[in-house]
Amino acid sequence: VKAEIVAIGTELLLGDVVNGNAAWLGRELAAVGVDVEQTSAVGDNVARIAEVLSGAVARADVVITTGGLGPTQDDVTREAIAQLLGVPIVRDPDLVAALQQRYADAGRADFPPINLRMAEYPAGARPLRNPAGTAPGLRVEHGSCVVYALPGVPREMREIFTGGVRDELAGRAGAVVASRALHTVGLWESEVAQRLGPLDDELAAAANPTLAYLASEGETLVRITAKAPSPASAQAMITAVERRVRALLGDAVYGADDDTLSAVVHRSLLDAGATVAVAESLTGGLLGGSLSSTPGSSETFRGGVVAYATDVKAGVLGVDEHLLAERGPVDADVAVAMASAVRERLGATFGLATTGVAGPAEQDGVPVGTVHVALVGPQHRPLVATLALRGDRDRIRGASVRAALDLLRKELTRPAGEAAPEQR
Amino acid sequence: VKAEIVAIGTELLLGDVVNGNAAWLGRELAAVGVDVEQTSAVGDNVARIAEVLSGAVARADVVITTGGLGPTQDDVTREAIAQLLGVPIVRDPDLVAALQQRYADAGRADFPPINLRMAEYPAGARPLRNPAGTAPGLRVEHGSCVVYALPGVPREMREIFTGGVRDELAGRAGAVVASRALHTVGLWESEVAQRLGPLDDELAAAANPTLAYLASEGETLVRITAKAPSPASAQAMITAVERRVRALLGDAVYGADDDTLSAVVHRSLLDAGATVAVAESLTGGLLGGSLSSTPGSSETFRGGVVAYATDVKAGVLGVDEHLLAERGPVDADVAVAMASAVRERLGATFGLATTGVAGPAEQDGVPVGTVHVALVGPQHRPLVATLALRGDRDRIRGASVRAALDLLRKELTRPAGEAAPEQR
Repeated sequence: VKAEIVAIGTELLLGDVVNGNAAWLGRELAAVGVDVEQTSAVGDNVARIAEVLSGAVARADVVITTGGLGPTQDDVTREAIAQLLGVPIVRDPDLVAALQQRYADAGRADFPPINLRMAEYPAGARPLRNPAGTAPGLRVEHGSCVVYALPGVPREMREIFTGGVRDELAGRAGAVVASRALHTVGLWESEVAQRLGPLDDELAAAANPTLAYLASEGETLVRITAKAPSPASAQAMITAVERRVRALLGDAVYGADDDTLSAVVHRSLLDAGATVAVAESLTGGLLGGSLSSTPGSSETFRGGVVAYATDVKAGVLGVDEHLLAERGPVDADVAVAMASAVRERLGATFGLATTGVAGPAEQDGVPVGTVHVALVGPQHRPLVATLALRGDRDRIRGASVRAALDLLRKELTRPAGEAAPEQR
Repeated sequence: VKAEIVAIGTELLLGDVVNGNAAWLGRELAAVGVDVEQTSAVGDNVARIAEVLSGAVARADVVITTGGLGPTQDDVTREAIAQLLGVPIVRDPDLVAALQQRYADAGRADFPPINLRMAEYPAGARPLRNPAGTAPGLRVEHGSCVVYALPGVPREMREIFTGGVRDELAGRAGAVVASRALHTVGLWESEVAQRLGPLDDELAAAANPTLAYLASEGETLVRITAKAPSPASAQAMITAVERRVRALLGDAVYGADDDTLSAVVHRSLLDAGATVAVAESLTGGLLGGSLSSTPGSSETFRGGVVAYATDVKAGVLGVDEHLLAERGPVDADVAVAMASAVRERLGATFGLATTGVAGPAEQDGVPVGTVHVALVGPQHRPLVATLALRGDRDRIRGASVRAALDLLRKELTRPAGEAAPEQR
């Protein structure tokens, strides 16, 4: 079953509103095995909407529109569908009565006549009850294509969709599509793709399951998608591929689906009965902000010291002043001293520290993007990762937080007996 | 000038990614007088992309694509454009050299050959330099229509667009559209709209300049847009309206255009020759992260203590243990004690503190969303804002950071002689 989504509203073209409805519908449709082949957004203009719809109904089995069903003059989806079908607009007396009742129930004395537009639809359409608002949705057939017109208000759109449209589409699609997202950190998208290349080529032949990559700030997501007659068989296909992806990417995969790096670190700390404290310089608190983002993180995150000014590193944290004077604040040994000091001061199992140059200007001759993250724990010698990061201030700080979290994650998930990595 | 935006990527159809690029481009294009007539999203499929592009170039003067320019197998925008134009793909030796250099600069030993795809483009295209990433954008002409292919990574897309595409389009559009965004904090969107209602009604008659509102997490932006024959006349129109908006909204307006709340606080501290230190509980470091986000913030931000665990508030910060035992950690006086302690420990002009319940569960009988932020400075008595926030954990923590920044901003920008506000 092929679907298209047509979002209607000039506010979408002007960028005043982000088209979250299309994304939500995309996820819902994928979950019931309906392939979305295209989405469009078009302004509040009868002729333009009718033109876009005409293309969509020619290509797809199902077209879902969002928006343009309200009472105002610029809500013209009804008119555009009527034009597409070549039918007149009719007024439904039952809908008129329901609208008037709704107003009376809400204790409103006057029923603004402009609302009568919401009781109208193209002849032959069937109204879809809107439990969350005033404007009903519409279902109309055009040849073999079914068009569902839903309101643009996200809550109303969702309630009408889940209230009946979804089941009708799932019944029509028959197949089930399932997917799993694997999150990686520390590898560039091209490195992920390179490692998975042979597997990807092998899978591409059958085109089911498939692999897709999505790079965002510092992370690459690998999505495995499978189509099958039943949820169980789709899951089995995914699991088989997931095993091979994980084997090829190793510990660069930190989690799946809704996992975040900080949530995985939190869970690993909980499992180990351990806590962490942070000493932050260039990240200014963002590492603590991330470690405290997961509900329940007070069980694993003790707090930290933001030693942004160099003298705070000595005065509050207690880093050796001679070391600071000799090496400057951006130094691997200073990072270790910061991690060690905060671990002790806050009584945590692990101390994690960041120091570096976020830019835009170099600092005491140290180039922008030079960052040291250090981890001090109860065992082994301290671990340090020294990074040469690119990008602007936000990006360097974000990458520093991820590198620090990842250093701790790898330490916590390292199989017992395996040696800690060599210092980089 | 009529434009269409074509977003490329199966992740958009699956709803894994919301099409924020189209919204951002929509705003930018509107600002330079280019009308976006339609936006589309299509999957990673050469034939489908070429089909959608073929419709777009027939209707529009300008087509902007986003996505599909990366190195992996599913990045096929280059191939689709080549198919549309009926030209072969060529490899650009200068781009190959630049890519290899980029890898070498980043200290990566191996250059994955898969990257060579990013040095390829349809014959006749012109690469657009990407200062933020690896894949260049492309500019290609098809009859009277110009197609700009930009990467899907938002940061890269934005940098290439603002780095030259925007100016080219503004030049083509002729008329000048200028706009100014005024940022407000502490008012709901409906409160802002209510205060500006009469002005808005007055402006609506001429429809130039116009006012628009955009609410995002805890802030409401008021955008003034004017169309005029020259930049100077557009600016003059905006300035006249801006004066009236500022008069109506008072100190809720914290800045304009690219200003952020933390940048405004940084500038105000610089002007006052003052510094700040933070003591954070529920915000876990995010307040420090925000205060250190502006280049040069080391001149005004000394650092802080993240006292996430209650005993750290006593042990490291030195908050009175009896007070903590008696009141619990979520208390206005505890917030003041935290601010006072960190101000003293770190030798800052101002101490700023947060404590509260981020959720999802209440804490010692204190409901989720209860937050105290406190400011202690050299003059006056301490200032405390007590908030009852709604929303999830992220939202409550974000709103707490904004409330703390705003408390400091208002103290720094309060006209001399005006009394500090009553404690709320």
